[in-house]
Amino acid sequence: MPMISHKGERMPASPIRKLTPFADKAKQDGKKVYHLNIGQPDIETPAGMLNAIKGIDFKVWAYTPSEGTLTYREKLTTYYNKLGYNIAADDILVTTGGSEAITIAMMTCLDSGDEVIIPEPFYANYNGFASQSDIVVKPILSHIENGFALPPISEFEKLITPKTKAIFICSPNNPTGYLYSKEELEALKELVLKYDLYLFSDEAYREFCYDGQTFTSPMHLEGLEQNVIVLDTVSKRYSACGARLGCLITKNKAVWTAALKFAQARLSPGMVEQIAGTAAVDTPDAYFEAVNKEYTNRRNTIVNALNKMEGVYCPNPGGAFYVVAKLPIDNADKFCQWMLERFSYHNQTVMMAPATGFYSTEGAGLNEVRMAYVLNIDDIKNAMICLEEALKVYPGRI
Amino acid sequence: MPMISHKGERMPASPIRKLTPFADKAKQDGKKVYHLNIGQPDIETPAGMLNAIKGIDFKVWAYTPSEGTLTYREKLTTYYNKLGYNIAADDILVTTGGSEAITIAMMTCLDSGDEVIIPEPFYANYNGFASQSDIVVKPILSHIENGFALPPISEFEKLITPKTKAIFICSPNNPTGYLYSKEELEALKELVLKYDLYLFSDEAYREFCYDGQTFTSPMHLEGLEQNVIVLDTVSKRYSACGARLGCLITKNKAVWTAALKFAQARLSPGMVEQIAGTAAVDTPDAYFEAVNKEYTNRRNTIVNALNKMEGVYCPNPGGAFYVVAKLPIDNADKFCQWMLERFSYHNQTVMMAPATGFYSTEGAGLNEVRMAYVLNIDDIKNAMICLEEALKVYPGRI
Ligand SMILES: Cc1ncc(COP(=O)(O)O)c(C=O)c1O
Ligand SMILES: Cc1ncc(COP(=O)(O)O)c(C=O)c1O
Repeated sequence: MPMISHKGERMPASPIRKLTPFADKAKQDGKKVYHLNIGQPDIETPAGMLNAIKGIDFKVWAYTPSEGTLTYREKLTTYYNKLGYNIAADDILVTTGGSEAITIAMMTCLDSGDEVIIPEPFYANYNGFASQSDIVVKPILSHIENGFALPPISEFEKLITPKTKAIFICSPNNPTGYLYSKEELEALKELVLKYDLYLFSDEAYREFCYDGQTFTSPMHLEGLEQNVIVLDTVSKRYSACGARLGCLITKNKAVWTAALKFAQARLSPGMVEQIAGTAAVDTPDAYFEAVNKEYTNRRNTIVNALNKMEGVYCPNPGGAFYVVAKLPIDNADKFCQWMLERFSYHNQTVMMAPATGFYSTEGAGLNEVRMAYVLNIDDIKNAMICLEEALKVYPGRI
Repeated sequence: MPMISHKGERMPASPIRKLTPFADKAKQDGKKVYHLNIGQPDIETPAGMLNAIKGIDFKVWAYTPSEGTLTYREKLTTYYNKLGYNIAADDILVTTGGSEAITIAMMTCLDSGDEVIIPEPFYANYNGFASQSDIVVKPILSHIENGFALPPISEFEKLITPKTKAIFICSPNNPTGYLYSKEELEALKELVLKYDLYLFSDEAYREFCYDGQTFTSPMHLEGLEQNVIVLDTVSKRYSACGARLGCLITKNKAVWTAALKFAQARLSPGMVEQIAGTAAVDTPDAYFEAVNKEYTNRRNTIVNALNKMEGVYCPNPGGAFYVVAKLPIDNADKFCQWMLERFSYHNQTVMMAPATGFYSTEGAGLNEVRMAYVLNIDDIKNAMICLEEALKVYPGRI
């Protein structure tokens, strides 16, 4: 029997799914499980997008150009240019989700053995994408005490070697919700230019900024045009995760042209999705205002509830729909599993993601969990009551 | 300005698209171009599949499980088991097109530097997928004289090294249309077992077998269960290329489990596509019978027309919707470009794919072209008249 590859062995399993069998068991046993573990929003997809699907009128479900249809890319420019990105259709490469945008960007810019610096905790699948291409992730710790702000530039400089090719940021951040300020981005800009690096900007949560704060992209900074690669997706923006529609944006023509070759090998992004994505750009502002209001409420609810619990600390994040909280526990992996396996309160329990899965430094985040506030307010309140009760009786409390 | 990766530089551009600018120019100049160059069928997608899209009734366009929905995978087993594959839903991993199935299979089974043997000419993007993962393609020449039959097993054995991990076949074949016989597959089976290799079987054209010939898959051979990985797609079967829906099938649990980790990193295949794919399994036999009849006619038309031209030879392929023909020309790349740039007959010309793009051996296929018979009979006839006239006046005729 032939052996699988070392790459296949080393490939990290999704840390978010590790606990799924325990959740399934809990449900079989009749427990209600509040899912705060995954980033699948419960928010409805804009009607215009769904109607575009229902309204398709082609007879042949055909390939589109590998870079995406011109119609969709042109429509996207109106969206991005309203944000001040100042881009053309030819700066956009349409991808199968943000995931593929990240994979293609990594392969286009980094060779096997090259290094990318990523502030941690970070979206766990960056590890998977890097691993796929034998790229080395150099994590740089950010801290819950200051809400996971950008680590000092001097810390970045310590990690830079001749193999460093890129810095990878995600703002608003998954898992921390932290929103980088313009000043933080300016500091990164200096660093990126000094060492001639790429700056990968994962903007999956761009629409989710709270308390009147505005989103800044590296695309807004002058002089970074050849360095910035934006990795985007409609998954969260329009609650359309199942669309698998994203894009890579860069004004660097050498990068775009090389990225296209990877895109040509896989032929085409989805056709129906691009039709829906075109319609999505016309989603009325009212949709986003309602969503923003809902998430602000949820965030306030979860952050307040958490900080009222004894021994718990949760910063108040500026964006996305996640929080990372510090709990008075020995080990988040054990605790999250225990919540599903051993604990219930009025026959209910909570599923959370241990933050360890978002750190690549061994031992970091051991007493932290990530929660996605993708449930309605009542469910969040109930989940928080559950968690509070659980912390009172958890044997590994410290 | 940071540099792109060596991988990005080495990545082959799509050979099929190289001539696109010349075709665009020809069209601008008012010429009618018959597109025999790409595998985008003109056949209508089954109505049941399109109606499934129009009939979607969800409110949240959500991620599906990374391996695909259970509904779709179970439905697929009825399709495959009718073919005699004897598989369960858990042997299937749903992918974003056959393209992603190939990428994931390669990464799961081969490490950087490992070798895969592929009879050539072969589907050009295999080069791209291998290149992405730093996998080495070892081509083994098949010959137009015997219709591109399987090369002798002794030729395969000459190429086997300790780094050889897999043999990759595609039957019915793109670009040659050749359909492997049961005997050829039995011979491959012995080889695969002797050297403990994987056998990748790209079955994109399974439905397209002519003259009453039946399709044999390595899945039909006993004793190969741990070695075979089927790479499949709905693109051609249902003329649904834009769906980006495929799957990887294997009974080898270690492979399936490792492949799932790659699939988890990219989260999910498309949701609407899986709904459409589920409906597609119920496509009535009459659809396939009509399609088969149409393609048989087209193949007969194109093969007959070609073999009537002086100096031209075209084998009569058993499947797919491609032919490779040998022309009395110096250089297929030059000829195909000349057809677009310099030639017209009654203001018409033909776009074909030079076969060189399907060979990885330098210099092979120099006087061969691939044609996809994805046009209606009249267009094929006109295209053949054009080609015949072109060959009469081509300055590089030999
Ligand atoms: C930070 C971040 N980037 C990228 C993605 C990938 O999203 P998709 O592939 O659905 O576009 C996600 C999904 O959760 C994410 O959280
Ligand atoms: C032999 C073969 N395999 C795989 C593919 C990939 O098809 P898709 O990614 O559309 O499923 C093609 C497409 O033309 C093909 O010809």
